[in-house]
Amino acid sequence: MKNILLKIKYDGSNFSGWQIQPRERTVQGELEKALSHIFREKIRLQGSSRTDSGVHALGQCACFNFNSNMPKEKITSVVNNFLRARSLVGPDLEVISAEEVAEDFHPRYHALGKRYIYKIAYGQKPDLFKRNYFYQLEESLDVDKMQEATKALLGKHDFRSFMAAGSNIVDDTERTIYKARFSQQEDNSLIFEIIGDGFLYNMVRIIVGTLIDISREKLETNSMAEIIKSKNRSKSGHTAPPGGLYLEKVFFSREELEYEN
Amino acid sequence: MKNILLKIKYDGSNFSGWQIQPRERTVQGELEKALSHIFREKIRLQGSSRTDSGVHALGQCACFNFNSNMPKEKITSVVNNFLRARSLVGPDLEVISAEEVAEDFHPRYHALGKRYIYKIAYGQKPDLFKRNYFYQLEESLDVDKMQEATKALLGKHDFRSFMAAGSNIVDDTERTIYKARFSQQEDNSLIFEIIGDGFLYNMVRIIVGTLIDISREKLETNSMAEIIKSKNRSKSGHTAPPGGLYLEKVFFSREELEYEN
Repeated sequence: MKNILLKIKYDGSNFSGWQIQPRERTVQGELEKALSHIFREKIRLQGSSRTDSGVHALGQCACFNFNSNMPKEKITSVVNNFLRARSLVGPDLEVISAEEVAEDFHPRYHALGKRYIYKIAYGQKPDLFKRNYFYQLEESLDVDKMQEATKALLGKHDFRSFMAAGSNIVDDTERTIYKARFSQQEDNSLIFEIIGDGFLYNMVRIIVGTLIDISREKLETNSMAEIIKSKNRSKSGHTAPPGGLYLEKVFFSREELEYEN
Repeated sequence: MKNILLKIKYDGSNFSGWQIQPRERTVQGELEKALSHIFREKIRLQGSSRTDSGVHALGQCACFNFNSNMPKEKITSVVNNFLRARSLVGPDLEVISAEEVAEDFHPRYHALGKRYIYKIAYGQKPDLFKRNYFYQLEESLDVDKMQEATKALLGKHDFRSFMAAGSNIVDDTERTIYKARFSQQEDNSLIFEIIGDGFLYNMVRIIVGTLIDISREKLETNSMAEIIKSKNRSKSGHTAPPGGLYLEKVFFSREELEYEN
C-alpha cells in the first residue's frame, strides 16, 4: 500500500468547501470521485485543512492510499487530464504535484504550520468580477494602524476570541502565530499574510474582520492584546467573507517553516 | 408609459447567456424577475445583444416599459440593492445606469455599433482562477502577425465565413468593422478590441480563433482577405471560447462612434 501526498489548487467559488457532504459539490468529493474512477478502487482522501465554502487554495495538501503501480510522476497528469475532460471551460481544481510519503504520514497531524493569505480591495467601487476573490470595501483603510495591530497576534496565545461560535473544538485553543502582516499592492489592494502552527475555525477571517474594525475605529488600535486576553468571541470583530481567503501553503518541514520567520 | 434604458454589467460565468429560457439562469431572466418584483408589474426587457453562455458584459444595454413614478435616478440603486440582498457573495449582475428614452427607442434596432473586447493570456501556464475570464494559451503568439492580419477585417464585408454554422441569420451578412486591433498588456496578455456596426452569431470568437490560427501558421498571414471572400465557414479558424469575450459598449450616437474611429 502506497501513501501519496497531493498538493492541490482550487477556486473555492463553486465548491461547498473541502469536506465531502452528500448532495454537495465539495473538493474532497470531486477529487475522491476522480481518483476512485481512475484507480478503480474506492479512494478516501485526508486533507490538511477543511476549508470552508468559498475559500480558495493555492497549496492544499491531501493524502490517499492506493495499490496501483502507476509511477507518482504520472498521477498529476492523469488526474488533471481526467478533470479537464469533464469540464467545459477548464477545471476549478488542479493537482500541482504528487509524491510518495511514509505510510504513517498524515497531512493534518504532521502539518507543522500553514500560511494563509487574505485579499482586500479597498478605496474603490466594488467590481463584480472580483466578488469571489477579494473582500471589497469602498472605504479607505488605515493600513498603518492595521499593521501596528497585527503585532499583538505574534507568538503563542489562546485565540478563543477568534474562534467561530459554532466550532467543535472547545479545548486546546492555543495557537502560535509566526508571521502576520499586510503588504500593499499596486492596485489599491492589500494582501494579508499569516503563518501559524494551526488555526481555529474561522480564525483568519475573524482576525481580518477585527483588523478592519480597528481601522474603522470600532475597536481601539491597542485593543488586540486585550481582545486575545478576554477569550471572548464577542470582543473581537466581524468575520470577513470567505472569498478573500486562500490556503497558500502547508508546512511539513521545520526548516522551511523557520526560514519563513 | 415610460421607456427606460438600462446599462448593465455582468460576469457571464454562471449565466446561460442573456436570453430568457425556461429552467435556465439567464441575465434577462434574472433581471426581469427583479424588475417585475420591484415594480409589481410584469416587466419584459429588450436587450441590445444576445450574449452567449459564459460571455461577459461591461456595457450591455436593455430597455423596458413601466408605469411607475419612480425617478430614473432611483432605479439603479433599487435594482442593485434588490440583487445584493439576494446574493451571499455579491451579485454577478449590476445596473450601471438608467435613463428615460423616447417611446419608440429600441436597444437593438437603434444600436449603431458595438465594441467587444476579447482577452487572451499566452506564453504562460493556465491559471485556474482565470479560466472564466481569459482564453489561456501556453504557447507563444506572433502578435505582429496577428495585428497585421486584422487589417483585412476593416471596412464593409460579407462576413459569412465568420458566422457560426447554426445561426438563424442567413441573409444580410454584411457588416462594417471600424476598428480591430490587439493591445499588449504588461502581464503577457492581449486585449483584442473590435468595433463594428453589428456582429453575426459567434463572429468575434471566430475572428479571434482565426487570428490565433494565423499565428500558429495553420492559416497564412495574408489569408484573411481570401477567407472573407470565400464566404465559407470552413475556410476560417476555430471558435475561441466564450469566457474571453466582453460586450464592452453599445453605441447609439453617431458622434460617439465616429470619435472611436
